[in-house]
Amino acid sequence: MPAHDAEFNQAKERLNTLTEAPGNDVKLKIYGLFKQATEGKCTKPKPGMMDLVGKAKWQAWSGLGDISQDEAQKKYIDLVNELVAAESATSSTSESTGDSKFKMINVTKENKIYKIMLNRPAKKNALNHQMYDEIIQALDEAGKDNSTLAVITGAGDYFCSGNDLENFTSGAGGDIPGMAKAAREILLRFVGAFISFPKPLIGLINGPAVGISVTTLGLYDLVYCTDKATFHTPFSNLGQSPEGCSSYTFPKLMGTAKASELLLFNKKITAKEALERNLVTEVFPDHSFQKETATRVEQYAQLPPQSLQISKRLNRRAEIDLLHRVNADECDVLVERWQSDECMNAIMNFFKRKTSKL
Amino acid sequence: MPAHDAEFNQAKERLNTLTEAPGNDVKLKIYGLFKQATEGKCTKPKPGMMDLVGKAKWQAWSGLGDISQDEAQKKYIDLVNELVAAESATSSTSESTGDSKFKMINVTKENKIYKIMLNRPAKKNALNHQMYDEIIQALDEAGKDNSTLAVITGAGDYFCSGNDLENFTSGAGGDIPGMAKAAREILLRFVGAFISFPKPLIGLINGPAVGISVTTLGLYDLVYCTDKATFHTPFSNLGQSPEGCSSYTFPKLMGTAKASELLLFNKKITAKEALERNLVTEVFPDHSFQKETATRVEQYAQLPPQSLQISKRLNRRAEIDLLHRVNADECDVLVERWQSDECMNAIMNFFKRKTSKL
Amino acid sequence: MPAHDAEFNQAKERLNTLTEAPGNDVKLKIYGLFKQATEGKCTKPKPGMMDLVGKAKWQAWSGLGDISQDEAQKKYIDLVNELVAAESATSSTSESTGDSKFKMINVTKENKIYKIMLNRPAKKNALNHQMYDEIIQALDEAGKDNSTLAVITGAGDYFCSGNDLENFTSGAGGDIPGMAKAAREILLRFVGAFISFPKPLIGLINGPAVGISVTTLGLYDLVYCTDKATFHTPFSNLGQSPEGCSSYTFPKLMGTAKASELLLFNKKITAKEALERNLVTEVFPDHSFQKETATRVEQYAQLPPQSLQISKRLNRRAEIDLLHRVNADECDVLVERWQSDECMNAIMNFFKRKTSKL
Repeated sequence: MPAHDAEFNQAKERLNTLTEAPGNDVKLKIYGLFKQATEGKCTKPKPGMMDLVGKAKWQAWSGLGDISQDEAQKKYIDLVNELVAAESATSSTSESTGDSKFKMINVTKENKIYKIMLNRPAKKNALNHQMYDEIIQALDEAGKDNSTLAVITGAGDYFCSGNDLENFTSGAGGDIPGMAKAAREILLRFVGAFISFPKPLIGLINGPAVGISVTTLGLYDLVYCTDKATFHTPFSNLGQSPEGCSSYTFPKLMGTAKASELLLFNKKITAKEALERNLVTEVFPDHSFQKETATRVEQYAQLPPQSLQISKRLNRRAEIDLLHRVNADECDVLVERWQSDECMNAIMNFFKRKTSKL
Repeated sequence: MPAHDAEFNQAKERLNTLTEAPGNDVKLKIYGLFKQATEGKCTKPKPGMMDLVGKAKWQAWSGLGDISQDEAQKKYIDLVNELVAAESATSSTSESTGDSKFKMINVTKENKIYKIMLNRPAKKNALNHQMYDEIIQALDEAGKDNSTLAVITGAGDYFCSGNDLENFTSGAGGDIPGMAKAAREILLRFVGAFISFPKPLIGLINGPAVGISVTTLGLYDLVYCTDKATFHTPFSNLGQSPEGCSSYTFPKLMGTAKASELLLFNKKITAKEALERNLVTEVFPDHSFQKETATRVEQYAQLPPQSLQISKRLNRRAEIDLLHRVNADECDVLVERWQSDECMNAIMNFFKRKTSKL
Repeated sequence: MPAHDAEFNQAKERLNTLTEAPGNDVKLKIYGLFKQATEGKCTKPKPGMMDLVGKAKWQAWSGLGDISQDEAQKKYIDLVNELVAAESATSSTSESTGDSKFKMINVTKENKIYKIMLNRPAKKNALNHQMYDEIIQALDEAGKDNSTLAVITGAGDYFCSGNDLENFTSGAGGDIPGMAKAAREILLRFVGAFISFPKPLIGLINGPAVGISVTTLGLYDLVYCTDKATFHTPFSNLGQSPEGCSSYTFPKLMGTAKASELLLFNKKITAKEALERNLVTEVFPDHSFQKETATRVEQYAQLPPQSLQISKRLNRRAEIDLLHRVNADECDVLVERWQSDECMNAIMNFFKRKTSKL
């Protein structure tokens, strides 16, 4: 018989205190452990072929096999504690910065450097709609204040795991065309904010980068990364298509044959490969990454700010109109993609795979 | 009342004979038609927000609106027949190369891969006019059939030794302006077929590549090569000038200073140098080249085909008009070149050198 | 009392025999040593804040501290002898070329090669207005004569130390807007001559390259360099902005993230890095640089000249109009920059730093 009843019940309560719902994969893990803890081993028949969600839940439960109800309780308790701790850790680090208008990012302004830190480490800094909005706001502010340059980096182990796929499942009442249209607007504004940003924009890639956090790299002026960073744009796996102007910038940076390997064929590359492909400026050993890049950025921030802005504008002048056009084209194509069978199936399979790994 | 009951029941049976399950989107179509055929118009309420699969099925059914059960049966029967026919067509062509309309190339269609093998190994796969024509035809066919992507490779030790210089000496009665004009037309169409090809195009460079088989590499989406491959564009040696859009793609891929070394100064480069210059995506040891690349290409061919096509189109969108213009410019310049003394002398010297080596 | 009076007086005489005045930093060194030698230690009060020249002279003198008048005489004598020797070495090599219409460059025409050697080694081949003019003239001549190609290289240890900053301080009566406008015209014509040059243009980079001698590299057709070469574009350090079409060519050659490191953040790169970034075609060990590159250039000059010109024109056709537009944009921006406080301050600081090193 389960031996941690009191703690288990506490954990159930604490789960409700999370301000942000965990991802589907975590939800399924919680579901499986809860069932195992309260009902024991799964003996239900596997749901039918087309009942994807039922099957996902069944797999989460039956995948636990013969572990005891007691052990399931313990795992459940640990998992909940972990989630609660991650969330409170996040909110406490963001306190220090004090810019209370941002919840998902952490903004600091020091030594003429406007620094944006993606701050959702429990979700690997995946971008939900609020986060897109806050980054747009922050870039707008950084473009106008008295900082010399802006920096974007991530909190925790990841730089950014890309677009939060829950953006696709959390829509209002399943109005898919409406959701797609809204997503288009926010994506267009988000990438547009990078294209038009008037000061030098420096990316400090502190860990793995996925999707739109990779595709927008072509719009930064300088990109430093740790040797632990990887770069992955699994669009066609998800039935989707490139954004962030990557359909234009990637072939320009590395040639079509290497760009397609990333944008069409889902190749994940290392920091060294990203350097060779001109996505990043320099790679640093992880242990010295923070220190080395901070030193450089501080030097750059002391350079004549007008000269920097004017030089950046010159560098971009020949193609800024084209970049905005490419952005709009990419967004239009994505609206169709998001409503396509390929994309629906791929996203369903994505959540199914996540579940089957439990 | 449904009028095709017997045929409908047969179709249900035939559906089970498919060796490969259709995609989710087709499954949903089948589901909708089956429900409409057997139960009539959908009157069930729309499933809840998070029931993605239930909603997908509901949409497939209710999307059929008021069509009669009879019509649904017919559509169901047609769809199943189509699927069965497609599968048997694929499996029968894949048995052998057998496509008798091609003499100079070898075409196979297997696992959604349309594979073109240049098949004139005794001439190192040099391109004569018939071969140009057959490749154009094959690309046209590959763009329209149900393959996901196309592959070009060579039979024997060479990938391709370029334009067959005998094209210049085998003309009708020495009408050089006429020959030049005809050659221009075929070159324009040949390169145009690469520019406009709508699906991913993969080059498997199995050995040395010369001339137009190198210059067109900038128009592929992925290029794998063996470490025995070399790349050579000896245009000015022959009094000629670049084609295959290389006057545009090469400076873009590797910068003007390295592009001119190839296009103006006849430098022959190794596989490794071609990798560094962004002409190829990856180099493989010769002994594992065939196996490694086959594995990769088979994986890619299973990706969502619409997503791939749309992503490729995006990658090319910003410059497709320019590519066609560059192609026309290059062809126009070559018509003059072919009639120039420099070119005549160079080609005569080429054959003289060949002869003197005998 | 000074012990080298006779020699010292001789040195003063010899100083007047120099046909070209030394740079400001050397002039200040001479001034300081002369004052120390003739009047002893500096006891004058430091000139006021805005009297830049007075302050520079004061620093040159007072920076010598307590060295004796005798020692100052010796240093003065040595410095003058050095300058005279450098100049006579230069003029004896230039005799052989004999093209008397050029004073700052050395032009030879041999084996269908039109070779321009920047010939102001005492100033590290810094470009003053006359030198800009002579290069424009030479390129015009090379484009029209019967040479197959043109080569640009430098005399002495440097390829070129960039725009001579004395162009900014030697103007007529401090009419800064007028000076800026005149400088714009000459820069526009200079870069335009590179854009429009109709034959292959080869750079032989014999040593460090700075500023405009780096930014114009994107307009050469082939660039060979010694492994002792370095490449430096310290624009923002000087409150300035990119020219030579580098705001367009550098992002194209190496991607924005690496281009900005050079154009915005003053990174000096090695020959190997310049190779990786597509600024140069090939790097040679310094000891074999002259021989290896001479052999290659002689071979290239024997290729069919029409074919080379036509191929070069094709390579540039798609972007020649854009290049001229970029050039004009960059020049317009620089006119504003030159009159900005950031630029004024940076140039003053530059001379101050030079002086304080004495």
